Amino acid sequence: MSKENLEYISKEFMKRHISIADIAYEVFKSQIDYVENLKISDANIAVSKVLSKTEVQNALMVAINLDNLANKNMLDGPLQEAVHSDKGTFGIDEVIALSTSGLYGSIATTNYGYLDKIKPGIIGRLNDLQRETGFVTTFLDDMVAAIISSAEGKIAHNTEESDTVYVEMMVKR
Amino acid sequence: MSKENLEYISKEFMKRHISIADIAYEVFKSQIDYVENLKISDANIAVSKVLSKTEVQNALMVAINLDNLANKNMLDGPLQEAVHSDKGTFGIDEVIALSTSGLYGSIATTNYGYLDKIKPGIIGRLNDLQRETGFVTTFLDDMVAAIISSAEGKIAHNTEESDTVYVEMMVKR
Amino acid sequence: MSKENLEYISKEFMKRHISIADIAYEVFKSQIDYVENLKISDANIAVSKVLSKTEVQNALMVAINLDNLANKNMLDGPLQEAVHSDKGTFGIDEVIALSTSGLYGSIATTNYGYLDKIKPGIIGRLNDLQRETGFVTTFLDDMVAAIISSAEGKIAHNTEESDTVYVEMMVKR
Amino acid sequence: MSKENLEYISKEFMKRHISIADIAYEVFKSQIDYVENLKISDANIAVSKVLSKTEVQNALMVAINLDNLANKNMLDGPLQEAVHSDKGTFGIDEVIALSTSGLYGSIATTNYGYLDKIKPGIIGRLNDLQRETGFVTTFLDDMVAAIISSAEGKIAHNTEESDTVYVEMMVKR
Repeated sequence: MSKENLEYISKEFMKRHISIADIAYEVFKSQIDYVENLKISDANIAVSKVLSKTEVQNALMVAINLDNLANKNMLDGPLQEAVHSDKGTFGIDEVIALSTSGLYGSIATTNYGYLDKIKPGIIGRLNDLQRETGFVTTFLDDMVAAIISSAEGKIAHNTEESDTVYVEMMVKR
Repeated sequence: MSKENLEYISKEFMKRHISIADIAYEVFKSQIDYVENLKISDANIAVSKVLSKTEVQNALMVAINLDNLANKNMLDGPLQEAVHSDKGTFGIDEVIALSTSGLYGSIATTNYGYLDKIKPGIIGRLNDLQRETGFVTTFLDDMVAAIISSAEGKIAHNTEESDTVYVEMMVKR
Repeated sequence: MSKENLEYISKEFMKRHISIADIAYEVFKSQIDYVENLKISDANIAVSKVLSKTEVQNALMVAINLDNLANKNMLDGPLQEAVHSDKGTFGIDEVIALSTSGLYGSIATTNYGYLDKIKPGIIGRLNDLQRETGFVTTFLDDMVAAIISSAEGKIAHNTEESDTVYVEMMVKR
Repeated sequence: MSKENLEYISKEFMKRHISIADIAYEVFKSQIDYVENLKISDANIAVSKVLSKTEVQNALMVAINLDNLANKNMLDGPLQEAVHSDKGTFGIDEVIALSTSGLYGSIATTNYGYLDKIKPGIIGRLNDLQRETGFVTTFLDDMVAAIISSAEGKIAHNTEESDTVYVEMMVKR
């Protein structure tokens, strides 16, 4: 049930001081150059819609669990060290994140790649947290980047999304 | 503009006797076992929503153009023969189709793989058209399978999609 | 280090009575219709090469860890129930598996979708294990299907892979 | 046949003054910080191996054909304008490029996203060509970025790719 999913995610976000406002701010900052009259509330709504998708919630819950388990040294075999050290060539953190941005098209996917390199704002803060304190954010920093890029893709497409009216026209033929 | 996109797609669908009803029928047939009280109109709506996405329309227009150009022998280099013969290992027809099903999550993507093998109903008819008459449907039969699997994914997730209300709760915190 | 990765994976495969021979047999069975003179040893080699990729090993170790943790009731929040019950719309098991088949092209990806529905041989056996005994194989049955489809894609492309000689020609120009 | 594929691609690269040396130089520049003792010849070899894959060649031939056809005003319907103007939300150029980088794992995919934004060296030159002269490179600049990111992914993984010996050990059990 998605209510439970979101309560769990919300609680884990708070533990790491991740707010939706921080996420939406990155979306706003990157899209203001492309979309005239973009408001911060548009970015908030886009982020909320991304977070309301079950597959995004599932990806987030897997990411959070793996980070928490690595934190407690509870992953088995070589995976523990790979996740704990946020090894650059590990790749599965990006795989899970790309599954979220992939839901929002190729713009979201390319934007994710850019954010993953640049690590602006909240993404960089999560990444630094791991490097400085050892608190594992291997999976979650990528998921936050994926949510930002997904909301960006949503905004980019919304400004031109087609009117369903014309499709209904086609159906009637 | 999406009105022009859909008019173009609609005209090209009619040339090949592809109707939205045929597409929706495959969706209905495959989902009736999973979703109680599913109506054929639900399948119609799901297909219409898939077709209203700009990125799906763009994929369809690329697919139709490449098929038409191969039909008129107007592709250049080894590509002409590869598309004209619907070579099994060509792969780019599936790449474009997978970009559509990818927008609807991993269920849609795996369903696409299944449909691409089994080729039920309208997909099989398009595939046979090419084998029997030489009329190229290399790209479009895959796109039709992608639209079916996307609408299936949409229906599978809709029955449990989360209420945005809870996300709004999170935003306010 | 990949030696440690493979020893871990090998040990966990044995616990579940998964042998490379079982995996290779499914590859052989599906490709014998397409590739003349295919030998069972070709299938074995293809599976071994898939398993030698670091990103495949990483995906396998994540899959095995998540299954084992769900088995011991050690996943946190709604994820425990989602993984334990192998919920059809969960989707992240397919996401991780698709990241492996994606490395072998669109043929491997579509074949994965087909295998995920049909569940032949070893895949079905792992899936039944969960339904009958409650032993969680939510992630690993998908990974085994991904390895099979990847080896299939490898064999399909190998029979026509280009000679690097011609590329070297291009480099010299 | 891949010899014909590569001759066609080579000829079209030359028309646009794209050399493998230019592509390999971008790979070298980005990987020299991560890989000790990396030589320019390593980058050349990585690019050659990427170009020797049939699915990469097929993606390139589709990209080149679509650019050439848009150049000659020969695409039909709204696609002509979308490709001719390299519209930012079109997305199918990225879809085809991502299919190439996807073959080299999630590092290649995220690197592609970065290159697509930054457009260094040869990618920027192709992009400028279109903006300044109207010569269409909508699809090909993305494919060049995909080849660069794929070679980068190849180099990143090669330095740690597992010894097949251990897999053979597993097979014998």
